[in-house]
Amino acid sequence: MGDRKRLRYGMVGGGIGAFIGAVHRRAIALEETADLVAGCFSSRREKNQETGDFYGIAADRLYASYEEMAKAESAREDGIDFVSIVTPNATHYEVAKAFLEAGIHVACEKPLCFTVEQGEELERIAKEKHLMFAVTYTYTGYAMVKLARELVAAGEIGNIVNINAEYLQDWLIDEIGGGNQTTTKMSVWRTDPAKSGISNCVGDIGTHIEDTVAYITGMHPKKVAAVLDNYGMDLDLNANILVEYENGVHGVYSCSQVCAGHLNGLVIRIFGSEGSLEWVQEDPDYLKVTKKGQPDQIYHRGTGYITGMAAERNHIPSGHPEGLTFAFANIYHGFMADVLECVNGHAPEKAGDYPSVSDGVSGVRFIHAVVNSGKNGSGWTEV
Amino acid sequence: MGDRKRLRYGMVGGGIGAFIGAVHRRAIALEETADLVAGCFSSRREKNQETGDFYGIAADRLYASYEEMAKAESAREDGIDFVSIVTPNATHYEVAKAFLEAGIHVACEKPLCFTVEQGEELERIAKEKHLMFAVTYTYTGYAMVKLARELVAAGEIGNIVNINAEYLQDWLIDEIGGGNQTTTKMSVWRTDPAKSGISNCVGDIGTHIEDTVAYITGMHPKKVAAVLDNYGMDLDLNANILVEYENGVHGVYSCSQVCAGHLNGLVIRIFGSEGSLEWVQEDPDYLKVTKKGQPDQIYHRGTGYITGMAAERNHIPSGHPEGLTFAFANIYHGFMADVLECVNGHAPEKAGDYPSVSDGVSGVRFIHAVVNSGKNGSGWTEV
Amino acid sequence: MGDRKRLRYGMVGGGIGAFIGAVHRRAIALEETADLVAGCFSSRREKNQETGDFYGIAADRLYASYEEMAKAESAREDGIDFVSIVTPNATHYEVAKAFLEAGIHVACEKPLCFTVEQGEELERIAKEKHLMFAVTYTYTGYAMVKLARELVAAGEIGNIVNINAEYLQDWLIDEIGGGNQTTTKMSVWRTDPAKSGISNCVGDIGTHIEDTVAYITGMHPKKVAAVLDNYGMDLDLNANILVEYENGVHGVYSCSQVCAGHLNGLVIRIFGSEGSLEWVQEDPDYLKVTKKGQPDQIYHRGTGYITGMAAERNHIPSGHPEGLTFAFANIYHGFMADVLECVNGHAPEKAGDYPSVSDGVSGVRFIHAVVNSGKNGSGWTEV
Amino acid sequence: MGDRKRLRYGMVGGGIGAFIGAVHRRAIALEETADLVAGCFSSRREKNQETGDFYGIAADRLYASYEEMAKAESAREDGIDFVSIVTPNATHYEVAKAFLEAGIHVACEKPLCFTVEQGEELERIAKEKHLMFAVTYTYTGYAMVKLARELVAAGEIGNIVNINAEYLQDWLIDEIGGGNQTTTKMSVWRTDPAKSGISNCVGDIGTHIEDTVAYITGMHPKKVAAVLDNYGMDLDLNANILVEYENGVHGVYSCSQVCAGHLNGLVIRIFGSEGSLEWVQEDPDYLKVTKKGQPDQIYHRGTGYITGMAAERNHIPSGHPEGLTFAFANIYHGFMADVLECVNGHAPEKAGDYPSVSDGVSGVRFIHAVVNSGKNGSGWTEV
Repeated sequence: MGDRKRLRYGMVGGGIGAFIGAVHRRAIALEETADLVAGCFSSRREKNQETGDFYGIAADRLYASYEEMAKAESAREDGIDFVSIVTPNATHYEVAKAFLEAGIHVACEKPLCFTVEQGEELERIAKEKHLMFAVTYTYTGYAMVKLARELVAAGEIGNIVNINAEYLQDWLIDEIGGGNQTTTKMSVWRTDPAKSGISNCVGDIGTHIEDTVAYITGMHPKKVAAVLDNYGMDLDLNANILVEYENGVHGVYSCSQVCAGHLNGLVIRIFGSEGSLEWVQEDPDYLKVTKKGQPDQIYHRGTGYITGMAAERNHIPSGHPEGLTFAFANIYHGFMADVLECVNGHAPEKAGDYPSVSDGVSGVRFIHAVVNSGKNGSGWTEV
Repeated sequence: MGDRKRLRYGMVGGGIGAFIGAVHRRAIALEETADLVAGCFSSRREKNQETGDFYGIAADRLYASYEEMAKAESAREDGIDFVSIVTPNATHYEVAKAFLEAGIHVACEKPLCFTVEQGEELERIAKEKHLMFAVTYTYTGYAMVKLARELVAAGEIGNIVNINAEYLQDWLIDEIGGGNQTTTKMSVWRTDPAKSGISNCVGDIGTHIEDTVAYITGMHPKKVAAVLDNYGMDLDLNANILVEYENGVHGVYSCSQVCAGHLNGLVIRIFGSEGSLEWVQEDPDYLKVTKKGQPDQIYHRGTGYITGMAAERNHIPSGHPEGLTFAFANIYHGFMADVLECVNGHAPEKAGDYPSVSDGVSGVRFIHAVVNSGKNGSGWTEV
Repeated sequence: MGDRKRLRYGMVGGGIGAFIGAVHRRAIALEETADLVAGCFSSRREKNQETGDFYGIAADRLYASYEEMAKAESAREDGIDFVSIVTPNATHYEVAKAFLEAGIHVACEKPLCFTVEQGEELERIAKEKHLMFAVTYTYTGYAMVKLARELVAAGEIGNIVNINAEYLQDWLIDEIGGGNQTTTKMSVWRTDPAKSGISNCVGDIGTHIEDTVAYITGMHPKKVAAVLDNYGMDLDLNANILVEYENGVHGVYSCSQVCAGHLNGLVIRIFGSEGSLEWVQEDPDYLKVTKKGQPDQIYHRGTGYITGMAAERNHIPSGHPEGLTFAFANIYHGFMADVLECVNGHAPEKAGDYPSVSDGVSGVRFIHAVVNSGKNGSGWTEV
Repeated sequence: MGDRKRLRYGMVGGGIGAFIGAVHRRAIALEETADLVAGCFSSRREKNQETGDFYGIAADRLYASYEEMAKAESAREDGIDFVSIVTPNATHYEVAKAFLEAGIHVACEKPLCFTVEQGEELERIAKEKHLMFAVTYTYTGYAMVKLARELVAAGEIGNIVNINAEYLQDWLIDEIGGGNQTTTKMSVWRTDPAKSGISNCVGDIGTHIEDTVAYITGMHPKKVAAVLDNYGMDLDLNANILVEYENGVHGVYSCSQVCAGHLNGLVIRIFGSEGSLEWVQEDPDYLKVTKKGQPDQIYHRGTGYITGMAAERNHIPSGHPEGLTFAFANIYHGFMADVLECVNGHAPEKAGDYPSVSDGVSGVRFIHAVVNSGKNGSGWTEV
């Protein structure tokens, strides 16, 4: 019998109507190499049943708890190869740990967990058990982000001298305005420390800035000096962060959920001694590249002049927008390729091109350092 | 036994590596309500087999010819409910006819066929047999195109007084330049009359302009005056078209495959007595709306102020780009909903929100009128 | 005594409050080499006086009629070297003729005049009397339009294969809507044939398209096929025009004064076998250049990589917008340099880089051909 | 004898070829109410003479030193009413002081001077002698910046909750790259402390951010926490600055002269509880306004819906770009109106709409606080 070509997966969280669960399922569907066969979609029994029915999950594989699911699937001959964890932040750690201990590969939403210790524990277990672990920092999946990474690596913009990145949204603006005409449905857990951990805004979106910049440049913050704004809420809704990287270069990150007119405004600008790069998540198929003393260049995804990883992970022709779901699919592409290798008995020596558990731990470190700096009068704080 | 909730479908064309077949499959996958169970993916035996294997098609449902497939599937208890036809233009008519005659619902790529007579025949058969028939004019599937349609219907821009629309690409520019550094892989059949019919550029993309404008405004060309440029090739690569609509309003359409810097540049601008609309396919999540005497407004897909069809067919939150595949999914959404109704014994009285066989016939009429006008010194030609 | 370094000029039209007169005066002021010393600013005596006072015009050089002004200034030792004519279209011909016959150089607003015969007469007189004659087609004065011309001449975009240009405004939209909330102050004479000649929209702005395209490419229309829309008014408010150039290439021009959301939307796109150019008047400091198979390039005015005429006529550093008035100043720069040469006794052999009376005649020919085609069922009409 | 209607002015600095002097002269020329009659344009005798000749300055009013000029003009019956100071930063203080002491109104380039004490002294002298004093922070002169100020004052965006502003350039990038293909002509004095004071980048452009934000919002920084990057030079080329305003709101400012692809990139974004504003200097005729829960709105300068100061200081119709020089003219408009009042014997009770000497002092305070914070490990520093 030859190698397996398809994978089986389960999902924890992601009941019908939940945004992020649907994104994960669709992303996996675009890859066409894995089937959803088990789930614990909701702690609410009816929602769980409804979701299971909709996706045709066999009755004995629709679980009331993730603990039960991890145990049962681990015991089955035809058990799931990996689990997608799309639950609220507060539960990532325990769910991920349960599946790792059951010997099941894990793809988990970000942030990975609440404390650095939790993250390191997950990292350690995954390593000991030779399990693959993706943390779905989506934005590194975009083809043009991959192009940015390659251009930096190729020295196209020279030595990096400055970084300016932001992630601005406005969906929590009513939290400060006091008005009652909320324009979006609030996620209560977002601003509740018990459910979101020590940070709302930095934890939810600031961490994407750190991850995406690190993916493109290889540069992680060494220390940060931050101001966080809570506007009377328990957790932060806005943050401005000075950054010093390990190589002494400085940068600045801004994240916010109260900036009217910004929907999902992740913007990354990398400045080097020979040129610069600019990428805007809301228009993801473009990359602006300016070489010193030359006209700006606008690269378009899918064209003949795009090569390397950005070409490999291209799915539809230039000028036909791919959108977020393909970025997500690209994350799963790398992860599922590694899982398939494991399943077929030859674990990869090095993880593929997707955010790993150790990127997840970096994210948690970053969140903690930013929050601590904010609490300590914006003093420089080691990451 | 209750109503069926899932559909079974087959595909003709769309072997691995073909662009448009993958788009159809992924679009259907995003909808999550139909399974690919049969196919005749390629006339080349190996390619057909490879594709069937990749998608897990049962051996007895992987067919060497579409005729055989139509017959066999029609005879099966568990035969396909609909077929997706993604073959070269020259074969649409015969393939569609075979499946209609076998009593199978049809989704067919555009252009529907080569002659108006063929189109009308398909329309007649579908009607007689009460079969659903979608022609996948993709761009009407975008949420913001649906918003445009609703704004026009609601009178937001008043009476339409002018239309300016274009579809510019550059992928065939080497056909005129004579250079040998082609930037994209040529589709030989595109410029071969035997395979493309009477038109290349108008038939391939000009027809999208006509369809998208008609979807938004309800206005079809009554007559056209056109100049086509072949640049020494057998078929057109560029066309500029004056249009007169049934209500006497004028407009202008331009389409081209030789305009450097344009990848898939469908741009629709509708001008009314009270305001205007502008939609750009390469940035599909925006709609620019200008009311007379007011600032321009930029509507963003997925926001709280978007309602109606544009909200119903929204899949992911604002600021997270959806891309072309969701537009395609929206076409299939309407079509598959109708097919499901039929399968469950209650055919819809009126086709849903997707381009029908009669829209396909309109497209063929338009192509013929444009080409004829071009041949007759740009004289006004009835559509 | 050495050569003169400064010029004296007079103005006909341009009373205080008139848009275009102020633009001419400021443009000349930016050049700093000519002084306004005489004028007949308005047929209304008070307005004339007020304007003369404001600009410090000597009492004996503020004239009640242009005929008197031409005669008197011609007779003075220190008479004006040139006149700026900024009157309504209907009077351009007679005013220009009077000054030419008085031996005075002329700068005249466009359109030059109403009939081709008038234009040819002006051209002939100017030639016979060795007088300089600028027709202020403003847009060729922009630095980036000059860059476009140079790139085309240098073969950067290869052989031109298609041209798509438009000039869309919305300030007359209330003429069609029938509403009474006019958003801009109407110029009654614009839609009155007695005052505007045979065309409103084509004569006012369509002619700019023809001139700017010709400046960039050297290509003049050989014949046109046009549809004009009057919407019940006496003159056109909207026009779509198919164009065939002398070299057989085709293009399309659209002009309108009823397109909501467009203020002064002159957009020129030139497509060649090796690349394309795009220039947008409302954002005039940029030029988009796309070479076949390469990323789009955005050139910025004033940068180190801009050379030639576009660098010579640069006034302020890159990133500091120059605006329309500098474009106008550039027109006057060339014209006044020629006039100064004449004044100093050595008339230039060849007119400098500014639109000439013969460009003005081309404009009138174009307007007539377009209007005639419109009247003849859009039949192809020689220019 | 009635009131005077025109002013006489002199210039210190601004020899032919110098950028900023020409901008001042042209801006004043656009206003058409003042004549250049005296100058000390350069310390280099030949350059001074050449400039005087070009502008027709009388021999006895072309001065070898500014001290002599202040004295002589003050003594003349027809002496200058005001002086424009466009010299290098190091000399602003002494030149301004000389003219103030001679009783002459002053318009001075920014930064006003090097120390807060100097600034306060100039402020005191001007006040004592009832002299008008403009510091030409250009950007507040733009019509759309005035609109932004009015919208904030009118409460259109609610309470301000966050500010994000930047001023990015790239013209000194070669200072870090070490390359020798400099793309722009270096101003040596920019990076020399003896000539530029304690700061290069913050002093040159960072101060514009502070001034423009303060103009729009009325909010001045109370304290700052900054990181400055010198890249081995004596002075800063890049700075990221956390800001806390007097009302406790936070913001972030970034300025740089080494960000490839940014020419003169002043971008101001003001976020309020009810909406936001965004203005981009390189595209100055637009203002993006987003009300909470509504589509983005793009306001265009010169349209009928623009009222108030932004309409009063509009010069040419919408869609015809005004550019930087009109912004400069608007600064001089307010200043010269005040000077004219003084000249005619009725000094204004309150300075008009232009940046005053006290704004200049605020700028110097800001620069010092930022530099001090940078030297003290980014600690919060009172402004």
